[in-house]
Amino acid sequence: MTERGLLIVLSGPSGVGKGTVREAVFKDPETKFEYSISMTTRKPREGEVDGVDYYFRSREEFEKAISDGKMLEYAEYVGNYYGTPLDYVEERLNSGVDIFLEIEIQGAMQVKKRMPEGVFIFLTPPDLAELKSRLIGRGTETLDVVEARMKTAKEEIEMMASYDYAVVNDVVLDAVRKIKGIVETEHLKTERVIHRYQNMLEEI
Amino acid sequence: MTERGLLIVLSGPSGVGKGTVREAVFKDPETKFEYSISMTTRKPREGEVDGVDYYFRSREEFEKAISDGKMLEYAEYVGNYYGTPLDYVEERLNSGVDIFLEIEIQGAMQVKKRMPEGVFIFLTPPDLAELKSRLIGRGTETLDVVEARMKTAKEEIEMMASYDYAVVNDVVLDAVRKIKGIVETEHLKTERVIHRYQNMLEEI
Repeated sequence: MTERGLLIVLSGPSGVGKGTVREAVFKDPETKFEYSISMTTRKPREGEVDGVDYYFRSREEFEKAISDGKMLEYAEYVGNYYGTPLDYVEERLNSGVDIFLEIEIQGAMQVKKRMPEGVFIFLTPPDLAELKSRLIGRGTETLDVVEARMKTAKEEIEMMASYDYAVVNDVVLDAVRKIKGIVETEHLKTERVIHRYQNMLEEI
Repeated sequence: MTERGLLIVLSGPSGVGKGTVREAVFKDPETKFEYSISMTTRKPREGEVDGVDYYFRSREEFEKAISDGKMLEYAEYVGNYYGTPLDYVEERLNSGVDIFLEIEIQGAMQVKKRMPEGVFIFLTPPDLAELKSRLIGRGTETLDVVEARMKTAKEEIEMMASYDYAVVNDVVLDAVRKIKGIVETEHLKTERVIHRYQNMLEEI
């Protein structure tokens, strides 16, 4: 019997660097888990490939998937849907593959409701002051916009309590090492491996 | 406020190689946790130093420590007591140091009763067949003795369920890496770090 894979969910406040950390995780040739490909209704950008960067679908198809309960999580941004197809994730997990999602906080909370056994990792800024400069550093926003984002960030950090682990995004490669350590350690949990040893006992 | 250190307990069946793994953990110059020095009533062997290898104490002193409730765990082997002094462990944990115990299963269960918040790691043989050859490989025991030890090993593996993690002792350096990964990951648990972030929020 194949052991079911782990669902790993990386999330965190806007601007914390989730995408950068995710890219670094998958640049590492030793990474054994798979990145979950999102489904979206937005048009492909130049060079983007269906089934590689995203599953590009029509609005009708996406809305049917939602109403059929076939989205593990989804959200609408700037008039387009983005989300994770449930069947695809289930199939990979049942094949024993660890699946990695990098999603926004609302999406992570949807996943937690449907798959509470997932491993939920919250990426945090080294401190909120730095988060402020990151938000401002993006460029063109007014101070009002920045203040509103700070408020959101505070609320989001309060949501950290819903996650299993908090990883500081200070040095990207440190964050990557910690995330990989979390995944390896989760595989060592007694509750996940005890049946292997029970089989050993039965053989004697 | 200093964050309290973690109590890390490495245990497992007789003959699985706990001592070898522990030595390899502490040979690694990057290991940040401290080995807890045991107390014993046995006489020092040549080269052993009080307060380094063991705390060497008289039988009267050890029994007084037991009756005063000052032993985190203890056991008697071949007419001598061995155990872990509670005050010493508490002092180090409160200083923010992670303390590492390598003890027998009965001792680990005593620790679990008094400090259930500890991190309990069970070292397992690659398979029970190999455990059998390890037990025989020690030398002079009769088959009856080996069979009795096998029975004990089976019981001990059934006790694995009381531990948080199971690490296979196949390649020693792999086991060391996994143990260090467990400790690092435990420090990332949200329940342990959330207060740091709550302080950040209060500062704004």
